[in-house]
Amino acid sequence: MERAPTMTAVPRDWEEFHPRPVSERVPFFTRKGRLYDCLFAQQFDRKLLDHLCRVADHLRAAMKTKEGALAAANLLPHKRAMLYFVQPSTRTFLSFLNACHILGLRTSEIRDTTTSSEVKGESPEDTVRTFSSYVDLIIMRHPAPGFVEKTAWVMNRAKRAVPVINGGSGSDQHPTQALLDVYTLCRSLPGGLDGKTVAFVGDLKRGRTVRSLSYLMKNYKDVKLVFVSPPQLKMEADILAFLKRHHIPYRECDDLTTVLPEADAIYMTRIQDEWDKANESKGMDYSRFNLKQEHLAKLKPTCAILHPLPRRHEIETTIDDDERAVFWRQERNGMWIRAALIAYIFGQDKEVLAIK
Amino acid sequence: MERAPTMTAVPRDWEEFHPRPVSERVPFFTRKGRLYDCLFAQQFDRKLLDHLCRVADHLRAAMKTKEGALAAANLLPHKRAMLYFVQPSTRTFLSFLNACHILGLRTSEIRDTTTSSEVKGESPEDTVRTFSSYVDLIIMRHPAPGFVEKTAWVMNRAKRAVPVINGGSGSDQHPTQALLDVYTLCRSLPGGLDGKTVAFVGDLKRGRTVRSLSYLMKNYKDVKLVFVSPPQLKMEADILAFLKRHHIPYRECDDLTTVLPEADAIYMTRIQDEWDKANESKGMDYSRFNLKQEHLAKLKPTCAILHPLPRRHEIETTIDDDERAVFWRQERNGMWIRAALIAYIFGQDKEVLAIK
Amino acid sequence: MERAPTMTAVPRDWEEFHPRPVSERVPFFTRKGRLYDCLFAQQFDRKLLDHLCRVADHLRAAMKTKEGALAAANLLPHKRAMLYFVQPSTRTFLSFLNACHILGLRTSEIRDTTTSSEVKGESPEDTVRTFSSYVDLIIMRHPAPGFVEKTAWVMNRAKRAVPVINGGSGSDQHPTQALLDVYTLCRSLPGGLDGKTVAFVGDLKRGRTVRSLSYLMKNYKDVKLVFVSPPQLKMEADILAFLKRHHIPYRECDDLTTVLPEADAIYMTRIQDEWDKANESKGMDYSRFNLKQEHLAKLKPTCAILHPLPRRHEIETTIDDDERAVFWRQERNGMWIRAALIAYIFGQDKEVLAIK
Repeated sequence: MERAPTMTAVPRDWEEFHPRPVSERVPFFTRKGRLYDCLFAQQFDRKLLDHLCRVADHLRAAMKTKEGALAAANLLPHKRAMLYFVQPSTRTFLSFLNACHILGLRTSEIRDTTTSSEVKGESPEDTVRTFSSYVDLIIMRHPAPGFVEKTAWVMNRAKRAVPVINGGSGSDQHPTQALLDVYTLCRSLPGGLDGKTVAFVGDLKRGRTVRSLSYLMKNYKDVKLVFVSPPQLKMEADILAFLKRHHIPYRECDDLTTVLPEADAIYMTRIQDEWDKANESKGMDYSRFNLKQEHLAKLKPTCAILHPLPRRHEIETTIDDDERAVFWRQERNGMWIRAALIAYIFGQDKEVLAIK
Repeated sequence: MERAPTMTAVPRDWEEFHPRPVSERVPFFTRKGRLYDCLFAQQFDRKLLDHLCRVADHLRAAMKTKEGALAAANLLPHKRAMLYFVQPSTRTFLSFLNACHILGLRTSEIRDTTTSSEVKGESPEDTVRTFSSYVDLIIMRHPAPGFVEKTAWVMNRAKRAVPVINGGSGSDQHPTQALLDVYTLCRSLPGGLDGKTVAFVGDLKRGRTVRSLSYLMKNYKDVKLVFVSPPQLKMEADILAFLKRHHIPYRECDDLTTVLPEADAIYMTRIQDEWDKANESKGMDYSRFNLKQEHLAKLKPTCAILHPLPRRHEIETTIDDDERAVFWRQERNGMWIRAALIAYIFGQDKEVLAIK
Repeated sequence: MERAPTMTAVPRDWEEFHPRPVSERVPFFTRKGRLYDCLFAQQFDRKLLDHLCRVADHLRAAMKTKEGALAAANLLPHKRAMLYFVQPSTRTFLSFLNACHILGLRTSEIRDTTTSSEVKGESPEDTVRTFSSYVDLIIMRHPAPGFVEKTAWVMNRAKRAVPVINGGSGSDQHPTQALLDVYTLCRSLPGGLDGKTVAFVGDLKRGRTVRSLSYLMKNYKDVKLVFVSPPQLKMEADILAFLKRHHIPYRECDDLTTVLPEADAIYMTRIQDEWDKANESKGMDYSRFNLKQEHLAKLKPTCAILHPLPRRHEIETTIDDDERAVFWRQERNGMWIRAALIAYIFGQDKEVLAIK
């Protein structure tokens, strides 16, 4: 794959490149007009989102038969992926691992840096480049913001480039989580996401998923957002400014019950008390932002209930049996859309659509 | 796969279900008259035992050629298994992992819960259901008694059921160990297990394997058992009562040498001092229950020597070279019979028998 | 595979066998005139080195197309390997793992002994034999010198032998590292390694790789060696004696700049301060043995720059972009030559050469 012509103007120095706006950095991670490294939610436009959803849908359907499954596993059996997960995250890890297996990729795992050569004084860039030597794809989760992007930068400048997928990078970006959320909304809502009202509930201030998902809303028409949270955990100003700039109507409130009847989808979230600075979550009555069995009667019959999981008490477990609860399917959707993304990066998306 | 009709009467509440006798719980883990979740040694009757042994034999033979191995690997390449081993056990883990690989399944591993989301306050049931989202089979080892069964219960009640195999659950059940022991006895004894005399030697009080294996003896005709142990480590009363109820003759003694000439098989076991309450094993002369080179002359020429391994000093290493020592084959048999079980659960047992 | 006739005279006792010279032990690890267990660099002669390099070259070329990759993966899909890496080494581990995957082998990993049954009082020999039960190949890295060889010895004497590859054994042997270094030199130097001048730079006293590589030089004609190191870290006397015995000319110096114009290849190494006894590395000016951008002009246009990696400051990162820097390719070469070695051990080397 060759670098796009726009790449010639890219600075050689990371320190100079990295502070640029995302929109200027995106082309460097693109090849032949196609996303090559998947790093930011901002890389997805409506056309790509619709396409990936269609590929994921098709893959899911194809996997229902042994023939379809073998056809899928025959797409990339000649490729090898490395899952470099320095930050613990079993569910994202398993989701990507099985997405790879669906497409036939062989996989290597690094789930702990203490076994790596970093201890011998090697630079992180050298370590990553070393590990990439053996594979054709890197899927990376790392606690340091920007590290995954820097890896993609380093790899793109090496003689042997390898695509990089961001599986969660510090507190800033987790693009495939946003992707699976959008996929679940589009699949679960009759007629798709256009024109729908989506309520986000809970810790909106610190939840990375609701932030990324809000960004992606600009790709859909006439979506209305309702932000339901304790006053201390309201959505941050940067997102609200973004929504205003893109003319996406929203309102904020702190009473879940009033929102139930109007929502086409409810996106529940867990309180992110691991980010507490002074135990501020302890004194909060978060139970007012939990979905309870008694609420079900007030919901629209087609309302989709989402949750990025893991949950604590945000959704009563008896609700799991309700037809509108889609959060378990949402989790599984992550595997399908990630498989679609990997197929796309390797130019196998049309081949997926051609199965059966 | 559909739930058998008997299932309609099953209580929705685990707390109500779990205290019932095993015989009443077994149907819930059965589908279309077939074992679906493998949880208890009690699920195996003679017909199923013979069938699984035959499938294992056939698989072993088929794997001797590349064509046969490829045919086996072509049975379940469209399925993905997760090995969820929270409790350390490398040998059982490797045995199951390679059993999966023989049949072509792709595998995911969880060998440590500290990397899981349990730390974020998720319930164990949610964690297991999450991990199961991505796969078609769960093989689980867990230190908490009943946890594996509860997982199977939760999964059976979910919209997307996934079979569960018990790879060792607390100190109570380890059904595939009993299965591989029976398989080894049937294979190693001329004419099979019916009519044979089996000596169990060592720590019979606390050895889970000898307990489970004793239960399975009721499936064979005219078997005689001899329990050889220090007085402090005799077989527990519940097993002896079970044997009486099923008219299986047994006798107890504490002198290994007197038993050697009559045994068709000797099942040696390690002292389980990890269950000591007050270092009671320290003062015991366990060496009297070790098999030594000098004993070999007294054994029948066809006597099979078994040991579930790992061993300490229960069998002198020079005995490994004797034709009657089958404990290394016994270990490998675990892989074959587990592969047979997995093939059976996925309805691929007849396909195994049809290879070549 | 049958034991070569010379094997009949081999002593049954490891304590008697192990102290013998390597040349006397090698036949025990050979079958039908072919290397069976790969334990020592001394097992490679010129014919085998040339052959393995040719197989590696062919495999690399074949893997450039999907058809070639599938043909390679179809060579050993019926075999299962176990990577038993008790000592941390992510890069060697990944290199072997992907070498296995290239040939289609399914893999099991043990990367930590705390999960094994060794804790229950099992002997290391029993543990290894247990793990080998499930697989067809063992690739082992172990901190104890001689342990890998002892494993191969134990396995060879068992009824079910399994080949063993040494992935690094204490501080003594790491034969596949020497193999990949030779492969890289042969590939990178115009006309191959015969007649060339190779400079080894850095900590020659404690670097295992330069020691093994020096041994292999006897297989090539008219090679000249230059050892460039601080006086405290000079090459050990045993290697120098070996070179004299085989009439391989060498000279020692401590000034890197004087060597640059004459070298056909420069092999840079890291200071091995983990072997320091009294922090002796701290006071040393190691920077005089680092390769810097300013040195490039003095190098021959075809000079190959190698490094076993990981590096600290031995090679300035700007040099990575120079055409003569082959250390990243060297790392990847490890995967190819290891795949070639595995194919050879399983008698699939001719099949590799027949691809396409």
